[in-house]
Amino acid sequence: MARAIIAGSGALPQLLLQAGSAHVVAFQGVELQVRDAPVIPARFEQLGGLFEALRAQGVDELCLAGAMTRPQFDPSALDETTIALLPRLMAAIGQGDDGLLRSVIELLEDEGFAVRAAHELRPDLVAEEGGLAGIPTSQHQTDATRARAVLDALGPLDVGQGAVAASGQVLGIETLQGTDAMLDFVAQTRPGSGGVFVKRPKPGQDLRVDMPAIGADTVRLAAKAGLSGIEIAAGSVLLLDRGTVLAEAEAKGVAIWAAP
Amino acid sequence: MARAIIAGSGALPQLLLQAGSAHVVAFQGVELQVRDAPVIPARFEQLGGLFEALRAQGVDELCLAGAMTRPQFDPSALDETTIALLPRLMAAIGQGDDGLLRSVIELLEDEGFAVRAAHELRPDLVAEEGGLAGIPTSQHQTDATRARAVLDALGPLDVGQGAVAASGQVLGIETLQGTDAMLDFVAQTRPGSGGVFVKRPKPGQDLRVDMPAIGADTVRLAAKAGLSGIEIAAGSVLLLDRGTVLAEAEAKGVAIWAAP
Repeated sequence: MARAIIAGSGALPQLLLQAGSAHVVAFQGVELQVRDAPVIPARFEQLGGLFEALRAQGVDELCLAGAMTRPQFDPSALDETTIALLPRLMAAIGQGDDGLLRSVIELLEDEGFAVRAAHELRPDLVAEEGGLAGIPTSQHQTDATRARAVLDALGPLDVGQGAVAASGQVLGIETLQGTDAMLDFVAQTRPGSGGVFVKRPKPGQDLRVDMPAIGADTVRLAAKAGLSGIEIAAGSVLLLDRGTVLAEAEAKGVAIWAAP
Repeated sequence: MARAIIAGSGALPQLLLQAGSAHVVAFQGVELQVRDAPVIPARFEQLGGLFEALRAQGVDELCLAGAMTRPQFDPSALDETTIALLPRLMAAIGQGDDGLLRSVIELLEDEGFAVRAAHELRPDLVAEEGGLAGIPTSQHQTDATRARAVLDALGPLDVGQGAVAASGQVLGIETLQGTDAMLDFVAQTRPGSGGVFVKRPKPGQDLRVDMPAIGADTVRLAAKAGLSGIEIAAGSVLLLDRGTVLAEAEAKGVAIWAAP
């Protein structure tokens, strides 16, 4: 059978295509960064048409990858299948972005598609426990423990995929605005230098929906914020991609390691 | 007997002087904003001299008020009493700012002085439960509940005197850099508008050390961040001062209320 990547923006869809031949589903309005793959164009108003097109290609496995903004919705363009799904979709929209995506996944499963997380297709994009770049110091470990305690405390509230601590002080806690905004805040406001950025999924987070990721830009922003260490959760934070992330870490003198 | 205000910068020392006649202890390097009060000059290296001066004035009650930065310390200027206290002070310095101040308070108590919190001298500077400006909406209450949940979760970690939520989303969590930096971050990065800033002491926080406060500037920054509500903890957040805070709130259309 066959696989399709429902592609958002960013580098991840192309990296997943390297895991084996696959179709790419391109929703209207998404700026694709993929090449050399058969594209199935799609509209959110016409899910019935999309399901048919997927089945016609023998697709039974889907992977949602990359960032997607909430679409503009043209009610006059709805097909019959989508109209039938509307009550479910409308209820889901009220549950925030994660809730919406989880509902979309359930809906895809009900249609008979298996939905895979990115790291199931490319296990090499996540890290096993251990060092990745540089050598973390005991101060790094202390700061990482502090940042992790913050994330553990906030997890049940569905807040926080990232936090920054330095010399035992918490300098940044990720909110809706995301990692880059937080690292930028730390760069602009922090006293001193050194410290660690910890990135983990929230407890119970569906990794098929919104897998945490770091890229070379993350390393650059962390270095700009005066940080000298990045801890990611082993097995559940994507390195996009590993080569450029680790090269940037070596260049900036930032240690990176994966913790359980 | 008599009272002395150990005065840092800001408006609070002057407001406390209005609670009744008192001496002002002015440590070297502090920019005082007080008038019409007898000043006792002091140096951190010469605590023995300070204690003598206080006793000579019959002072038995102290109140630490206003912001103080960590002093430069000239070892050659140490008096005998301070040298004897050094091991205690050095140990306290390792415990962070709050730990240091708590140790200073213990030390002052051991010297026979009673140490009072600002709101013990001026109960009118804190608010009783209820509305202070404008009328909070049910959305305000929902957002305040969300922000409060974040602060409750972080309290045991000694993090967070403030948080911002809007439309159920957490947009800012106060870290070492303080309230103004967080509100500025929210102003620069948030989507949409509306939402609530919640300010509370951390659970178990010694209000004689570091009482949370909001001023007219806080209201201005909250409004600039698109927020339309501020919730403070009843009885334990200072309004500096009430008149200017509430006038600014009315001017900016920001509701303020005190919650238990």
